[in-house]
Amino acid sequence: MQTIIGFVSDFGLEDAWVGVCRAVIYQACPQARVVDLAHQIPPYDIRKGAVAASAGVWQLPNAIHLVVVDPGVGGGRRDLCLVTEAGTMLVGPDNGVLLPATWHAGGIAEAFSIDAGKLVARPPLATFHARDVLAPAAAALACGVEPRSLGDKLDPAGLVPAPYEQGRKEGDVVVTEVLDVDRFGSLRFGVYAEQVAGFGLEVPKLGVSLGHLSMVVAFGKTFSDVSEGDPVCIVDSSGLLTLAVRLGSASERYSVEAGDAVRLHPAG
Amino acid sequence: MQTIIGFVSDFGLEDAWVGVCRAVIYQACPQARVVDLAHQIPPYDIRKGAVAASAGVWQLPNAIHLVVVDPGVGGGRRDLCLVTEAGTMLVGPDNGVLLPATWHAGGIAEAFSIDAGKLVARPPLATFHARDVLAPAAAALACGVEPRSLGDKLDPAGLVPAPYEQGRKEGDVVVTEVLDVDRFGSLRFGVYAEQVAGFGLEVPKLGVSLGHLSMVVAFGKTFSDVSEGDPVCIVDSSGLLTLAVRLGSASERYSVEAGDAVRLHPAG
Amino acid sequence: MQTIIGFVSDFGLEDAWVGVCRAVIYQACPQARVVDLAHQIPPYDIRKGAVAASAGVWQLPNAIHLVVVDPGVGGGRRDLCLVTEAGTMLVGPDNGVLLPATWHAGGIAEAFSIDAGKLVARPPLATFHARDVLAPAAAALACGVEPRSLGDKLDPAGLVPAPYEQGRKEGDVVVTEVLDVDRFGSLRFGVYAEQVAGFGLEVPKLGVSLGHLSMVVAFGKTFSDVSEGDPVCIVDSSGLLTLAVRLGSASERYSVEAGDAVRLHPAG
Repeated sequence: MQTIIGFVSDFGLEDAWVGVCRAVIYQACPQARVVDLAHQIPPYDIRKGAVAASAGVWQLPNAIHLVVVDPGVGGGRRDLCLVTEAGTMLVGPDNGVLLPATWHAGGIAEAFSIDAGKLVARPPLATFHARDVLAPAAAALACGVEPRSLGDKLDPAGLVPAPYEQGRKEGDVVVTEVLDVDRFGSLRFGVYAEQVAGFGLEVPKLGVSLGHLSMVVAFGKTFSDVSEGDPVCIVDSSGLLTLAVRLGSASERYSVEAGDAVRLHPAG
Repeated sequence: MQTIIGFVSDFGLEDAWVGVCRAVIYQACPQARVVDLAHQIPPYDIRKGAVAASAGVWQLPNAIHLVVVDPGVGGGRRDLCLVTEAGTMLVGPDNGVLLPATWHAGGIAEAFSIDAGKLVARPPLATFHARDVLAPAAAALACGVEPRSLGDKLDPAGLVPAPYEQGRKEGDVVVTEVLDVDRFGSLRFGVYAEQVAGFGLEVPKLGVSLGHLSMVVAFGKTFSDVSEGDPVCIVDSSGLLTLAVRLGSASERYSVEAGDAVRLHPAG
Repeated sequence: MQTIIGFVSDFGLEDAWVGVCRAVIYQACPQARVVDLAHQIPPYDIRKGAVAASAGVWQLPNAIHLVVVDPGVGGGRRDLCLVTEAGTMLVGPDNGVLLPATWHAGGIAEAFSIDAGKLVARPPLATFHARDVLAPAAAALACGVEPRSLGDKLDPAGLVPAPYEQGRKEGDVVVTEVLDVDRFGSLRFGVYAEQVAGFGLEVPKLGVSLGHLSMVVAFGKTFSDVSEGDPVCIVDSSGLLTLAVRLGSASERYSVEAGDAVRLHPAG
């Protein structure tokens, strides 16, 4: 039974929210092990939350993932439990934040709403669903409760859409965007590891266009495949095609930010 | 038996202090579960530490709370264990930082000093009481040691006072201050959840004065009770009366900071 | 058996790396307890990583220490397990980052390479040795695997050198540098706690030269040995001779940064 709960949120670490959710989980399911994946998501940023959750599922496909980036909390939006084809379980709000993560796990097998009445020890606080509904739901899953016991079965087609799309092929070119810039300044593109071969990008060199800039970059296995200061494309540890500069910052070098358009093609 | 230890400090996360205290607790009491509540309290800021501890007790009244904001460490100040009327146990220095948290738990039932000689595995380091006295005391409580075994019984009236007061009624007006600004820019006032009804503030609209600014604000259950960009008063997840702007920042909107005076009255 | 794993890295907390390594450890060795010691090491900063690991070993000599600051990841560099004379086990890359920590634990008793083939559940990702080699090695140690089972025995003399040296005596003067500035602005010098007596520095007053500035400072047991605003030398909680200003910042007062030269002598 899976007892590891990966936890992504926009709660930050200045306040007690993360710890309170942890405590609620430990009280409800002592054998759960909560691992903090990312809590510095900018407030309300569903897109960045989706990227972080996606990396979490790529790394830990056989865990439960609790994802709380929830600008609509307290309004009418639903709480969800998604089960992927790979068996990953995700818990979070129905605002699109959970969907990109399922692309790393074969897509959605089943979707359920979470019925607070079946779970909660104290009545849900309108502003703190994470504590009163989402964390208890994750704890229940960690202690063996079946996803279908949490609420009604939903049609995945009716969920709020993802905040970004996967890269797509247009003629000979792969069209995508910069999803994220990591701590080391590397640029993560919206091309998922699973797409690389099908797009014909498994080649020694890639043509990369970022805004007005076009260049040919080595496609390596690791940063050390190029010399210090040189750019390199790799599939990084978040499972995304990534442009890095060895021992430098691609973000600074190319003045690129999350959201900028990217075009890719095989170049030898 | 309660084995969850909520941990608040001004240690930050750049250094090893938090981890070392965790390790000391796990070595002394393997069944303890430490949950980090807030470690980014500005150095020596007893007031902000008290707000964080207060939110922690509101959320987790049946836990042990370890609170380390301790500018006087190594001097003559006492180490304390407080037990509230609700059964919450708090461990920290006698500098006022523990007191506001007890207002969420019925007040102080019993107070004890912590005698380092009864606890410590290695001699206390003058600069690191948290590791050598406070963390071991919290671990002992988590493993079932009675608070009265830690040291002498104290008169609560003799403790160093709290760094701020609860809101109070002056005629028809409730006088308080901004205790804290949270990550989302919401303003937390010094009116505790338990005071709202007694102050006659359980009404649909509140008059709020912040410096020269006066306005009437809806008193809702959740942010979604108002439209995007509108202000709303709620009792937030820290158990304090709070002024928020839906999907915005009240702190930026009204140019208000922690410590600013606030006046409240029912307004229909 | 030691099951506490202290974890130092330059991963930051914005991304999922730390959590993923935790999850890998919990999956491989459920009884392990990972304690985060420091993850805000600036990217690639071996020197700061070594200071943090050193403080970790000073505080927790009987733990396993996982240290990941690894600019050469994916290149030819080795993964190491060091066992100190005191029994501390350290796991990390062969780039010097582990060595200063061993000075707090009697030096290196035995050194081993880590053979990924003996450990890993999934093939190592060239960019994420921490997940695929280093974290699994730490987990194996926590579950009782002998260090010599991880790989080949190495000659400690052949390891990549430490990023800084310990303080040394030149005539009557101790020559060292500022290793680190902590959250409270205190200056940590490269003089290890174990060296203080042998250098003749166990005296009430120390002469301290920082660049062009020379002064005589009390050598105390704690910050409270001096008045507010006065400087004091102590052996701080990281096990290093440290210059602090009581309730102030020595770094701001003296405009000193990590790397600046320091000269010390007994002064009464």
